[in-house]
Amino acid sequence: MTRPPGSSRHRSRRPTIAVVGLGLVGGSIARGLTRGGWVVLGVDRPAAVRAARAARAIARGFASVEAAARRAQVVFLAAPPPANRKALRALAAMDPPPPVITDVGSVKAAICADARRLGLRGFVGGHPMAGTERRGFAASSADLFRGRTWVLVHARAAAAPGRAVATLARALGARVKRMRAAEHDRTVAFVSHLPQLVSWALLQAARRDPVAARNLDVAGPGFADMTRLAGSPRGLWREIVRENRREVTRALRALRSGLAGTLPGGS
Amino acid sequence: MTRPPGSSRHRSRRPTIAVVGLGLVGGSIARGLTRGGWVVLGVDRPAAVRAARAARAIARGFASVEAAARRAQVVFLAAPPPANRKALRALAAMDPPPPVITDVGSVKAAICADARRLGLRGFVGGHPMAGTERRGFAASSADLFRGRTWVLVHARAAAAPGRAVATLARALGARVKRMRAAEHDRTVAFVSHLPQLVSWALLQAARRDPVAARNLDVAGPGFADMTRLAGSPRGLWREIVRENRREVTRALRALRSGLAGTLPGGS
Repeated sequence: MTRPPGSSRHRSRRPTIAVVGLGLVGGSIARGLTRGGWVVLGVDRPAAVRAARAARAIARGFASVEAAARRAQVVFLAAPPPANRKALRALAAMDPPPPVITDVGSVKAAICADARRLGLRGFVGGHPMAGTERRGFAASSADLFRGRTWVLVHARAAAAPGRAVATLARALGARVKRMRAAEHDRTVAFVSHLPQLVSWALLQAARRDPVAARNLDVAGPGFADMTRLAGSPRGLWREIVRENRREVTRALRALRSGLAGTLPGGS
Repeated sequence: MTRPPGSSRHRSRRPTIAVVGLGLVGGSIARGLTRGGWVVLGVDRPAAVRAARAARAIARGFASVEAAARRAQVVFLAAPPPANRKALRALAAMDPPPPVITDVGSVKAAICADARRLGLRGFVGGHPMAGTERRGFAASSADLFRGRTWVLVHARAAAAPGRAVATLARALGARVKRMRAAEHDRTVAFVSHLPQLVSWALLQAARRDPVAARNLDVAGPGFADMTRLAGSPRGLWREIVRENRREVTRALRALRSGLAGTLPGGS
């Protein structure tokens, strides 16, 4: 972001970027890197590609992961988890695979293990801790990651790909933090996945109570804050929680015991 | 608020207001009504009275509830619940008691029953659904209630005092909603008290987990939203939850059963 397009003396050394999945996160990466002067190729369904091209978020759109990856040095996997896993297998089948591959998924142990099994030495697990309850390219923004933490998970042998991804994350305004996959997954169970489940459960409890349900208009800003996440896409989240089930179960147990302690006289 | 001081033809019909407790809510009522042209008397400890006078939130300060109430037509009880109950007894012992008494507490059944037992026919239970996690006069604002709901609970016989309080609540920018005490207490258990308990429990769970605790810096805006209420004054909230224990227990049970359903495969 510090070098506007064309002004850099190192322009020729900039990798071409492929972004697979042009939703909220992928669209924001595409917008931010394009604005920063990178050439960004997008992979998604025709309607999403058209929207991204119309917004000048990508230079060119592709329907297949391989077609874009052949022309790129860095590939971001920003589709839902099952699509990312499928894309990872497609990239591993390429000869050679792209030198740097990263993802933006909320759980890291499983996809990092997949990449290892597939022999993708240039894989860097990533998780930008940003988002909104809205979704899709229409909700994307070049500034989504500004001031947020972007977690990177990679083997020591993948130091160079790690640096390449870190440079891009920082160009998007994020602070890079390196973590082990297990440590990341346990932490996000507490600070992201559990809050998500609780937000749904709070809204559901209020909506299902016949008295509270007909008086929801009295709720103040605290309730609005606590149920904002409940607007997040449920299918995607169900997938995330399933993938991180062990850690989410641990966090849920801690929450329950904490709640039992808050009510005077126990419950 | 629509009539600036001195401009109203009905100036002489405006009641003098006493506000007991010049914290976040009482201070905001005093600021807003003073700005709107009412004469507001404040009751609190000397330091709080001095701060309120310096901010021109009150015309005059008093150390005793009775001394202020003798000079006022409407008394707002905005101290913590035990102090409000004590003030209510002091007002009931006056001859005659003030014509209109209202409170701003988060639970309504108990104080409305108290007022009934004490024979205070001018009592109107009130609950402005506004607040922040901050506290004290320093956090008060004339605009705290703007756009919020102000619940009023009163007997049909108290229609005139109800109208008087409603006028003041609307002057502060709030929308007035009349409810029965039981309905109010059950609703706020779901939309206010339970979210408060959950916010604490979420923060506590994350802080007590050794891995999550050392990585709290990765948390994104969702976690910040979900734990903002955890900064609220704990002693006051413990009191509120104790007073509304039956309804909070009901809400907590609903949350638990909801949470059990969110984890794929059960838990």
